[in-house]
Amino acid sequence: MSTNMRLRLPLLCIILEVILIILFGALVEYNDDTHAKMWNANKSHSATRDDYENEFYYRYPSFQDVHVMIFVGFGFLMTFLQRYGFSSVGFNFLIAAFSLQWATLMQGFVHGMHHGKIHVGVTSMINADFCTGSVLISFGAVLGKTSPVQLLVMAIFEVTLFAVNEFILLSMLGANDAGGSMTIHTFGAYFGLMVTRVLYRPNLDKSKHRNSSVYHSDLFAMIGTIYLWMFWPSFNSAITNYGDPQHRTALNTYYSLAACTLATFAFSALVNPEGKLDMVHIQNAALAGGVAVGTAGEMMLTPFGSMIVGFLAGTISVLGYKYLTPVLESKLKIQDTCGIHNLHGMPGVLGAVVGAVTSALASPGVYGHGLQRVFADAETGKWNPQSRGGFQAISLAVTLGMALFGGLVTGFILKLPIYGAPPDTHCFEDGLYWEGFLLSQALPWGPLHSKEYNKSTDSIL
Amino acid sequence: MSTNMRLRLPLLCIILEVILIILFGALVEYNDDTHAKMWNANKSHSATRDDYENEFYYRYPSFQDVHVMIFVGFGFLMTFLQRYGFSSVGFNFLIAAFSLQWATLMQGFVHGMHHGKIHVGVTSMINADFCTGSVLISFGAVLGKTSPVQLLVMAIFEVTLFAVNEFILLSMLGANDAGGSMTIHTFGAYFGLMVTRVLYRPNLDKSKHRNSSVYHSDLFAMIGTIYLWMFWPSFNSAITNYGDPQHRTALNTYYSLAACTLATFAFSALVNPEGKLDMVHIQNAALAGGVAVGTAGEMMLTPFGSMIVGFLAGTISVLGYKYLTPVLESKLKIQDTCGIHNLHGMPGVLGAVVGAVTSALASPGVYGHGLQRVFADAETGKWNPQSRGGFQAISLAVTLGMALFGGLVTGFILKLPIYGAPPDTHCFEDGLYWEGFLLSQALPWGPLHSKEYNKSTDSIL
Amino acid sequence: MSTNMRLRLPLLCIILEVILIILFGALVEYNDDTHAKMWNANKSHSATRDDYENEFYYRYPSFQDVHVMIFVGFGFLMTFLQRYGFSSVGFNFLIAAFSLQWATLMQGFVHGMHHGKIHVGVTSMINADFCTGSVLISFGAVLGKTSPVQLLVMAIFEVTLFAVNEFILLSMLGANDAGGSMTIHTFGAYFGLMVTRVLYRPNLDKSKHRNSSVYHSDLFAMIGTIYLWMFWPSFNSAITNYGDPQHRTALNTYYSLAACTLATFAFSALVNPEGKLDMVHIQNAALAGGVAVGTAGEMMLTPFGSMIVGFLAGTISVLGYKYLTPVLESKLKIQDTCGIHNLHGMPGVLGAVVGAVTSALASPGVYGHGLQRVFADAETGKWNPQSRGGFQAISLAVTLGMALFGGLVTGFILKLPIYGAPPDTHCFEDGLYWEGFLLSQALPWGPLHSKEYNKSTDSIL
Repeated sequence: MSTNMRLRLPLLCIILEVILIILFGALVEYNDDTHAKMWNANKSHSATRDDYENEFYYRYPSFQDVHVMIFVGFGFLMTFLQRYGFSSVGFNFLIAAFSLQWATLMQGFVHGMHHGKIHVGVTSMINADFCTGSVLISFGAVLGKTSPVQLLVMAIFEVTLFAVNEFILLSMLGANDAGGSMTIHTFGAYFGLMVTRVLYRPNLDKSKHRNSSVYHSDLFAMIGTIYLWMFWPSFNSAITNYGDPQHRTALNTYYSLAACTLATFAFSALVNPEGKLDMVHIQNAALAGGVAVGTAGEMMLTPFGSMIVGFLAGTISVLGYKYLTPVLESKLKIQDTCGIHNLHGMPGVLGAVVGAVTSALASPGVYGHGLQRVFADAETGKWNPQSRGGFQAISLAVTLGMALFGGLVTGFILKLPIYGAPPDTHCFEDGLYWEGFLLSQALPWGPLHSKEYNKSTDSIL
Repeated sequence: MSTNMRLRLPLLCIILEVILIILFGALVEYNDDTHAKMWNANKSHSATRDDYENEFYYRYPSFQDVHVMIFVGFGFLMTFLQRYGFSSVGFNFLIAAFSLQWATLMQGFVHGMHHGKIHVGVTSMINADFCTGSVLISFGAVLGKTSPVQLLVMAIFEVTLFAVNEFILLSMLGANDAGGSMTIHTFGAYFGLMVTRVLYRPNLDKSKHRNSSVYHSDLFAMIGTIYLWMFWPSFNSAITNYGDPQHRTALNTYYSLAACTLATFAFSALVNPEGKLDMVHIQNAALAGGVAVGTAGEMMLTPFGSMIVGFLAGTISVLGYKYLTPVLESKLKIQDTCGIHNLHGMPGVLGAVVGAVTSALASPGVYGHGLQRVFADAETGKWNPQSRGGFQAISLAVTLGMALFGGLVTGFILKLPIYGAPPDTHCFEDGLYWEGFLLSQALPWGPLHSKEYNKSTDSIL
Repeated sequence: MSTNMRLRLPLLCIILEVILIILFGALVEYNDDTHAKMWNANKSHSATRDDYENEFYYRYPSFQDVHVMIFVGFGFLMTFLQRYGFSSVGFNFLIAAFSLQWATLMQGFVHGMHHGKIHVGVTSMINADFCTGSVLISFGAVLGKTSPVQLLVMAIFEVTLFAVNEFILLSMLGANDAGGSMTIHTFGAYFGLMVTRVLYRPNLDKSKHRNSSVYHSDLFAMIGTIYLWMFWPSFNSAITNYGDPQHRTALNTYYSLAACTLATFAFSALVNPEGKLDMVHIQNAALAGGVAVGTAGEMMLTPFGSMIVGFLAGTISVLGYKYLTPVLESKLKIQDTCGIHNLHGMPGVLGAVVGAVTSALASPGVYGHGLQRVFADAETGKWNPQSRGGFQAISLAVTLGMALFGGLVTGFILKLPIYGAPPDTHCFEDGLYWEGFLLSQALPWGPLHSKEYNKSTDSIL
């Protein structure tokens, strides 16, 4: 059977992990805040460095919130499919665990080695989780239609390109993007959309009956939604400068999400002929407000501005689910399982535009001495808000280009018939990959048969 | 159909959010700890203000725990109903997202403007979430019997009255209530009980078959319970003074909850003829210990005192579920879906009384220089423990009065036949509000019919 | 019926809680960081102690993560059983709430009283939660086969012995074990394995049909798994020294877990004839990496070393589930419901060995001035890495001996026919303990009958 993972998945996992371990052994070192010698060395030379100044205490609570978003948030958000809960949570777990290691290396390579070594600490952990988030966004587009081997291969390429794009934006163009409207959401979305375009399955309707939710699977998905929603203020503020920027980013994101939620409920009911709410919208569009302030959140966007952005993001996201997704599938052959274009794509672009405008409007009068804590080049005296805004816009264009090109190439690589992709008749089906299900190919539209699970059906519910 | 939300819900959401945005634009500003100019302005004038002194680092982890309680805790606690999981989590999400914005304004108006502006930061976020908690408590009383339009209207009034009551207690009476035994729990409970009294449905038994749990819905509800239980120490300590009061409050709450849990299991089994445990008690009464130390938690209650209070709270809560709730419904016509009287009402009153007694017993001998960090007026020299205790007792009376009066008025407003309240035959039913269910009015006692969900039943379980 | 809890459970709970309250009243005091008088007393005598130096701000976020692991992590991990979800989460809740109080006393007695008083604060809360974790590990071995009365009795003895063993290791032998590879995991595992050995049920196969998972119960269990996995860095770092040790421990654990996850997926597929993944492995073995760096995590293990340890831990854990657990049951008569030997036993021993080796390899050249922050006796000048390594190895031997002996004695105590142990035909069955199920003993292999739950089956799924 084509999806046989008998050797492919385990060998790939083992080989990748062995490579990772070797590279970590050769290249990775503790940074000054995690190194027994360096932290104390610095301390002994100067009386000003106390334990509470260790970056751990500024960043670790944010890191854990981000970590929850990556593993519980993304993992459970995708459990909405009725027969794909094990794979949603499980493959999310696998590719995230791989990606965060690979991202540590790739981001370390690109963003600057220290005497040939990559330095790690809580900030690198957050950045690695961020990069992983991008891969999980792309996962949302191909959910149910790709084997775990394909997903790992996708992660290898996407993480690498993510690091390159991030380097171009943050280091070369000097862009601001603390919450990753561009680097994470726009990149992950358009990369994933291009991959799913290349992997287009004309006969996917053979698995259509499984490409939907059941009552309890929608409740599991709400666990993911709510955790993403709650912790998004931590996500956007996790790597800003200490003090007011971190505080302000969390606050702006909080208001943006609240406004977005009201827009989501409003438009979900408005676009329904009976005025009913659609769980798909609530699960996804209510989060668009977090995506859309990913760039401008650290700036003086004001709660007022944040709420306007959040309201717009929720609105375009619901409208996208209702009117755009069907067109993307029928006209452009883009089969986007989770609708990432609506949750991450359009709101990410919106966030980039808002960031460019907010940058262009920045002034010393508003920011005072805080200006250089938000715009790094303000310190050098060369700062010019209009050109800053321009560079932000260029950053969006670069991101779109990198994502579409990278997704195209990666899509063709994933199309090679060597990864055990699931057949059209068995997409969105846990039984292909997980023990305990008895697949019945003679009854492709019939129920899953499993000694265990059938028995349990009789007995418990 | 009377519950038609075709236009009412979306228009209400849009109008409310537009009003919120306008008011935020006119009135809300960053406070000194979130403002780029102000934070750095202060810093540059004095060498003593370092980033780690930003209130963000003292309060944000607590805020996130509170946030989880509001959205996951309350949201999932109410998913115990077999057919109302979408609405429980979804409407909780909607009214919380609205309430936290509205509360920011109302609390800002009442508690003191700065040159005509409301200042926001992490403390205002926590306070807004607290106020939201009160609305969600009331939601528990009317769960399943009110449309989302009614819930939003209720939130408008309840948030406003909450802010007024909170102002009277904290600013005028100088009361202590860091964890909100009075302002949040007592207020939310009696407000909600009065609303549900006014909205009494004599024929609610037509929906009785849905007003109960199933196996998995009880497990989802336990997610809510456990998160509320775990993070209650953060809730009670979130806005106390820094240092020992915050630390002590968390500790007291931790012990109170642990003792409460043993009491809950004990009395749940004791009141059952077969000695079996009742999930309703475990899900709810085990939390009463957190409610009951909401006022005294920051004081020198001692672990010993906290455990006694927790044990009592768990006991009265279980006994309330067993013996009082049926009487409230049959005699007083109070239909309290979640039993908020047992979880928030009686334990809230207990907490207020414990707070009054503990205040009255405070002395400089016990508190030392820490006295004024708990009792603000100790600094002025006018502090008198007995009168403090008296003011605490008056605060309880004021809260009860405000809650009952406010609930009465709000109840009559919600009774107007313009909000699409669900019919008696379709209470506790997601299908009224959510896409994907096919309601069968011909079979009011029969199963929900849904193409999607019926199919899935065949195929997955 | 033998499992009748009519009086036994409630009386035991009440008596235990009353004893706890009395002992807390007599013995427990706030420590300096939670006491209104002491914190401020110190402050007023010296200008150097600011609120941000209160241990609360260093430890409380870690505490909350640990707390989530104890109540959500362990609680939901055990919901994988199809008919035992209420008991898994509920009894986990009960015995954890008891154990953390009892542990506060036992650890306080043993680790040093202050003028006859036990001092409590956030560090004691973490330590009490740690001890509780050990009891919950043992619970995993006897899950489904013991009444809550038995579990409470087990907790009484296990907590006591835990405190003694911890004292011997940390205070007498001067061992390092911040994340508890030995004190928590090895101790809890072998204690529990010995208990279940003594409680061996030759006819347990009468309940075999319920000793397995269903689709949704496996998803609930994944909630537990993911939370344990995410917060394990906080667990291992929660009570290390401030600054670089805490930071480094979190980092090492993060990498160990990531590598462990890839090993788990690899070997889970590899040992399956069809190359399919087994949910049991993913739910459990992926966590072994956290266990295995519980001792060495605070040392200069390096990310490289952490990943090797994590990879090994995942590998032996999967192989244990596949090949060792069946042998333990058939040959040694050890019925280990959750496979704690594979998740906590072997990885705990591995962690102890890794800790001994890493200790023996420590040197001032690598640690610099940080040496004494990891190895307390380095300050005294008597430090010798080889003997340190030796003491670590002795600590493992002591732990194994204490656990096996303690489990043996406790097992025989639990075997007394006075605790209402469930009959062989009704193990793994919520209906014995929880209201709302109608047990049908005439149909031991048939479905659970319950008016409520049967009705709901018809109507919702």
